[in-house]
Amino acid sequence: MAPTSETLTAERILEATEEVLRRHGPAKATVVDVARALGVSHGSVYRHFRTKAALREAVTKRWLDRTSGELSGIAAGDGAPEARLRDWLAALFAAKRRKAGADPELFATYTVLTGENGTAVGEHITELTAQLTRIVRDGVESGAFASDDPEAAARAVFQATGRFHDPCYAREWEEPGAEADFTAVVDVLLRGLRA
Amino acid sequence: MAPTSETLTAERILEATEEVLRRHGPAKATVVDVARALGVSHGSVYRHFRTKAALREAVTKRWLDRTSGELSGIAAGDGAPEARLRDWLAALFAAKRRKAGADPELFATYTVLTGENGTAVGEHITELTAQLTRIVRDGVESGAFASDDPEAAARAVFQATGRFHDPCYAREWEEPGAEADFTAVVDVLLRGLRA
Repeated sequence: MAPTSETLTAERILEATEEVLRRHGPAKATVVDVARALGVSHGSVYRHFRTKAALREAVTKRWLDRTSGELSGIAAGDGAPEARLRDWLAALFAAKRRKAGADPELFATYTVLTGENGTAVGEHITELTAQLTRIVRDGVESGAFASDDPEAAARAVFQATGRFHDPCYAREWEEPGAEADFTAVVDVLLRGLRA
Repeated sequence: MAPTSETLTAERILEATEEVLRRHGPAKATVVDVARALGVSHGSVYRHFRTKAALREAVTKRWLDRTSGELSGIAAGDGAPEARLRDWLAALFAAKRRKAGADPELFATYTVLTGENGTAVGEHITELTAQLTRIVRDGVESGAFASDDPEAAARAVFQATGRFHDPCYAREWEEPGAEADFTAVVDVLLRGLRA
């Protein structure tokens, strides 16, 4: 049944947008495509998203937020900072691998969209770095880590592990040595952070 | 003057191939294109490179070897391993930036070619990791670094600095914070290697 203007929420539109992207790839997912998929007028969609660009930005943000949402619990936990940092990086790697492996076409589509939506990506990286900063700061406070600038240290850790979360390495993630490579990089970074 | 069969060396063919790539992009650079540019028969080129694939692989290898050649002097030097590691990584970053910045179209062309020539890229990474391993091993011997497995440590350092040498980050290299980011990553890695 087509949604009415009362039941047509932004979330429902974004779900439909993802479904359109999944079926037709990144070239599609205009407001008109999405309205058609929902069986509503395009005016109803425009009430929530004023342009095609706004719609694509929002669906990209929603996709990225799913990952940062999964990780926020680890960042906010109260386990030992060193274990928490390792768990957080492993969870990020696992989430990206799962996204890339479970639905490679949708992943490729979102890789195109993230290339177009620099603001959503920038906010995502800011959010992830903030979570990492929280862990590093906890470690400095507990005496486990040494750092004059936990935010800069968190940014360095994030950048140094790019191979295990940046989509441009997605092809490497299923290579046999990927897990050992991840552990070796995290080991040297943790040694580098230790007080 | 067109080269004769005596003067037509593999190096001269590869120079001409690079020139063809520079002018026409990655879709060109067939044996016939290169023979035409040199004013020789394509048979003369085939005597050195039996297929278009072999020619493209060789020109990619030559391009990659220019970078590893520049760095080999640093790896083989006898300065303090910590300074040498930092210099080597900085020289790699500088070489890649210079290649990307000085001739972005040729860089983009070679980025396509490296995608096609996995063997040449694999050998290049093996060579660079061997140079890094030499520095790490010198550091372990001198007591500056601690590592049970210098080769694995070198591989981790290479992977952790991918942001500063992997072509998929070329767009980030001219960002204002790139130099500071590089220093922060290298600092934490060096701390992690220190005995």
